Amino acid sequence: MILQEKILDFLKRKQEYASGDQIAQRLGISRQALWKHIQDLKQAGYDIVAVPHLGYRLISRPDRLFTFEVMQDLGTRFLAKKVYYFDSLASTMDVAMKFGLDGSPEGTLVIAEAQTQGRGRLGRNWFSPKYKGIYFSLILKPKMLPSRASLLTLLCAVSLCEAIKKICDLEPGIKWPNDIWFSHKKVGGILTELNAEMDAINFVIIGIGLNVNNDKKSLVNGATSLREHKGENVNRIDLLQEILRRIEINYLLLQEKDGRYLLEKARAYSLTLGRRVRISVREKQVEGEAIDIDRDGGLLLRKDSGVVEKVMAGDVIHCR
Amino acid sequence: MILQEKILDFLKRKQEYASGDQIAQRLGISRQALWKHIQDLKQAGYDIVAVPHLGYRLISRPDRLFTFEVMQDLGTRFLAKKVYYFDSLASTMDVAMKFGLDGSPEGTLVIAEAQTQGRGRLGRNWFSPKYKGIYFSLILKPKMLPSRASLLTLLCAVSLCEAIKKICDLEPGIKWPNDIWFSHKKVGGILTELNAEMDAINFVIIGIGLNVNNDKKSLVNGATSLREHKGENVNRIDLLQEILRRIEINYLLLQEKDGRYLLEKARAYSLTLGRRVRISVREKQVEGEAIDIDRDGGLLLRKDSGVVEKVMAGDVIHCR
Repeated sequence: MILQEKILDFLKRKQEYASGDQIAQRLGISRQALWKHIQDLKQAGYDIVAVPHLGYRLISRPDRLFTFEVMQDLGTRFLAKKVYYFDSLASTMDVAMKFGLDGSPEGTLVIAEAQTQGRGRLGRNWFSPKYKGIYFSLILKPKMLPSRASLLTLLCAVSLCEAIKKICDLEPGIKWPNDIWFSHKKVGGILTELNAEMDAINFVIIGIGLNVNNDKKSLVNGATSLREHKGENVNRIDLLQEILRRIEINYLLLQEKDGRYLLEKARAYSLTLGRRVRISVREKQVEGEAIDIDRDGGLLLRKDSGVVEKVMAGDVIHCR
Repeated sequence: MILQEKILDFLKRKQEYASGDQIAQRLGISRQALWKHIQDLKQAGYDIVAVPHLGYRLISRPDRLFTFEVMQDLGTRFLAKKVYYFDSLASTMDVAMKFGLDGSPEGTLVIAEAQTQGRGRLGRNWFSPKYKGIYFSLILKPKMLPSRASLLTLLCAVSLCEAIKKICDLEPGIKWPNDIWFSHKKVGGILTELNAEMDAINFVIIGIGLNVNNDKKSLVNGATSLREHKGENVNRIDLLQEILRRIEINYLLLQEKDGRYLLEKARAYSLTLGRRVRISVREKQVEGEAIDIDRDGGLLLRKDSGVVEKVMAGDVIHCR
């Protein structure tokens, strides 16, 4: 931890006034140096009051996904042990991909408060206005065949639903394969990119974009945000931490139990199962009833001919 | 073309003595500058003689895979229009992967005369002694599903066999999925690495390592070289050019005809089909008779139970 983080940590745990002498002594710095760091923290958006004879007190933290805030009391075993925070990036995917190539460890997290070229599947745009949403990419190194990588998309979809339910008390669902929906509108999306050989994944970059505190003005057509459904702003730090915890839990579950429990959860959250859907994969189209999610994450469609076909990914339209 | 390449080009096409005046005038430089460039070319290994009253003549080019040599009269449509040449690299794969992420066009080629950490499948070592073999990586951007990427490995295997046959008059075979063999010994290998989404390949890096002029001292156990079979050194530039031409031809064929012709060629060159094989994929093992190569490049095995199983990649042992 750097010094400013230590000061914050101290003030957070104290939860009341701490004298400048006490803090300075504890951290082995001068009162003058402490005062300077407190000014920097206030500059960064931390509301810290200083009262003569009482000392400093932390009133509130800013709505920023600072590395320190994300890591504090996160409690994960391997996820987000390395966190890179950016005020703005073209895309967290590109940065995480380069970190992956340079050998960054599993669990490395790249967060941006805004993305100028945030992207979804097939190079489509993901609108990422500043401080409104949660945009991050994560490096995973699962010991699995590339053909099973779709399970990681599902895993993150389930984790997003669980975290949103816990933190916001809302009930979103999964539109297979990679979208999180509320009442026919997209609130989040997952992008899974592989770096792989034919029979081994080197690493995977999972990108997540979630509309959190967007008002109507900062949403594109057909999209919604947690705020729209909750009626108030959501604490992005708490939500991001819960998402990370859920991803780790589900990831360990996937590796241990071959995905059985994960699939049960994915089925329960699925908005696609039981519906008639039309799926476009490149130039090809398939239509039928979505009857199940297969063990590798693929969607099983029963076509009108009665033949069951598995689709691994694609553009899905839910027919009425 | 830079000036030195223009001088070389001129001397090559002339095929006899060219006066310094003539060359200097043609290229718009002084005779003094020409002389300086000729010295540099000689330094690089070009044997250029200068005879009073006659001028300069190119006697021979060095055994180096210089960008200019590889590109000259290559005649491809998109392959190797961008070529990066290195005297030594850790691995051409890593460099090509970074170029791919930075948006380098399809067909970009990264050549190294030596690799200090050349690698094969699953991070295994590929011994790459200097000037002995051909080591390169290629960026391709095929419009296909990631699940069909194994076809690209086969495509390169076929192209290697065809080029070796044409240039060296030798008959190698393909040990499925990614090795080129002469009489039970490995002469070359192919490493295919994907950067992909679930339903789209962003780009593929194909790495090829080929033992060309290695003598026994510069070969690892169980490996052989073209020189060992040919009894003499092979011109690496000619061979590399032919490999590149074949890859382009087969690649266009694959995209146009859905791989049917390519599979016919792969079957013909296969050393694995018709044999009893044992394949290890991660912790799992399968054994049976290799009966066919499937449309997506997978190997069809008939197990002793009579059940046919498809394997997409793995460590293959040819049983007696």
